[in-house]
Amino acid sequence: MNEIRRDYLLDRYVIVAENRGKRPYDYIQKAPPAKEKEGTCVFCPGNEHLTPPETGRIGGKGSKWLARAFYNKYPAVSPEFPKALGRHEVLVETPKHVAKMAALPEEQIAIGLELYAKRVHELYAEKGVACALIFKNEGAAAGISLTHTHSQLIALASAPRLVAEELKQYGEYRRKEKACPYCEVAEREGKSARKAFENEEFLAIAPYASRTPFELLILPKSHLANITELGEEERLLLARILKKSLARLDKMLNGPAFNYYLHIQPKGKDFHFHMELLPRLAIWAGFELGSGMYINPVAPEAAAKAYRGD
Amino acid sequence: MNEIRRDYLLDRYVIVAENRGKRPYDYIQKAPPAKEKEGTCVFCPGNEHLTPPETGRIGGKGSKWLARAFYNKYPAVSPEFPKALGRHEVLVETPKHVAKMAALPEEQIAIGLELYAKRVHELYAEKGVACALIFKNEGAAAGISLTHTHSQLIALASAPRLVAEELKQYGEYRRKEKACPYCEVAEREGKSARKAFENEEFLAIAPYASRTPFELLILPKSHLANITELGEEERLLLARILKKSLARLDKMLNGPAFNYYLHIQPKGKDFHFHMELLPRLAIWAGFELGSGMYINPVAPEAAAKAYRGD
Repeated sequence: MNEIRRDYLLDRYVIVAENRGKRPYDYIQKAPPAKEKEGTCVFCPGNEHLTPPETGRIGGKGSKWLARAFYNKYPAVSPEFPKALGRHEVLVETPKHVAKMAALPEEQIAIGLELYAKRVHELYAEKGVACALIFKNEGAAAGISLTHTHSQLIALASAPRLVAEELKQYGEYRRKEKACPYCEVAEREGKSARKAFENEEFLAIAPYASRTPFELLILPKSHLANITELGEEERLLLARILKKSLARLDKMLNGPAFNYYLHIQPKGKDFHFHMELLPRLAIWAGFELGSGMYINPVAPEAAAKAYRGD
Repeated sequence: MNEIRRDYLLDRYVIVAENRGKRPYDYIQKAPPAKEKEGTCVFCPGNEHLTPPETGRIGGKGSKWLARAFYNKYPAVSPEFPKALGRHEVLVETPKHVAKMAALPEEQIAIGLELYAKRVHELYAEKGVACALIFKNEGAAAGISLTHTHSQLIALASAPRLVAEELKQYGEYRRKEKACPYCEVAEREGKSARKAFENEEFLAIAPYASRTPFELLILPKSHLANITELGEEERLLLARILKKSLARLDKMLNGPAFNYYLHIQPKGKDFHFHMELLPRLAIWAGFELGSGMYINPVAPEAAAKAYRGD
């Protein structure tokens, strides 16, 4: 039966509408993947001169990089826009011309995460940067522009709307309950029917108030404020659960488009960082746009079960 | 040059990113409209027995109705869902089997608005209903299910997230400034480069912090809390500006998909009602989903100019 559910922290509600008669496997994608544009891939090694200036890399000199960051060619924000200050970078997680993040070995994903951490660390040392959002678009329905897998980083002078709201609720919970709400979510949901995957440090759960079918929340069990706090071994564990989640999603639903993003601490703030993965399977229509609520026809418990392959 | 803009009321920000080199007419749709499914249209006169029970109508008996409301076949909320209480109805604005609202004469649109007002009036007299959201999806990209033009109404026991937030900001502004913020928006923006259309009672403006190319805000110049407060003549004026907006959008961009919705007073609250029209021209990707901010590549001033056809 249908149920209105509130987000763990936000004043954001979802109507879980199982009565629509949809089952998880009704979301298997039928369309073939979009054809790649022909021509030179500016994200491939050897074409570094075709990108805007580099801002960071992992690996060797010249074309010997393993992951590489550079300015976005069409920045949304920039130090040069007085009314839209910020940084906008592209983060390429692999030198291989591969469209799917799920196809990369976990060691390569870990190198991508190392680049994320490096850029956040460096940008948080700069003036005028208060918060960075790293996000990935994969597939046409997720707003992709170039196929070679990559993410983007947008750093702003203040925390964006959703991060600011999470931070506020986080702070209020800490003051009242003397505990981290995300630590409690990890503890409680890690034992629930909503757990999809788990390893020594990370959990992937279908959140209680999932906005979309097969949404996942990936969070560390330890109280870590930022991806910059991860050591090499922990980055590999995050890469492992991320690859497992993406590979399972890809196989289960025939390569659906998705977005993921990281919510990390705004500079100097206490927080518990996490990733949110949103497959693009449902169209948010007039109700979602006008209400700020969501209708999700797949119960998170059913999504978690499908991820686990029970 | 790019610019971060704040919404009139909400703590919601948009990056107007004109540097992406897009011009308004780059959004002309190329795809032909989706083919209609064959078979009986359950929204057409003569098929009343195929819909769930009727909740209201304008016009005569039997199949002689001019506009008709009934329960949604797959309700998101219902008096029968203890954990998802509410009402979910379909509002068919015309007996004619027409896919585009813009194709209706303004007198017929006014009849549709009369049905909206009637259902809101009746539902607001019921227990357990605190706020109604009326919305329309038109076109595949906007989440349409059946082509015969129609809207939906979802009534809930409390104001949904975005309405609650507008109401809160509205109340704070009223207390501080001793004025209605929407009256001031109408006064100020009605004289600006963001005005698209105007008549004796209504304004259509491309809002300062438009989330998407060609967004429109339609609002009464008079301080009216709800669509139920409109008389026959004012409904015709709202129908006129709505038709003008939709017809111009349709012609200008070759029939793009869109959503619109009405933000009206939650029961017993002071407010200034308005409509928001969002063409589905841009994909909200990882940045929008993760930040709650928007990147809009068309300046509202350019959108308003294109609407006016200057």
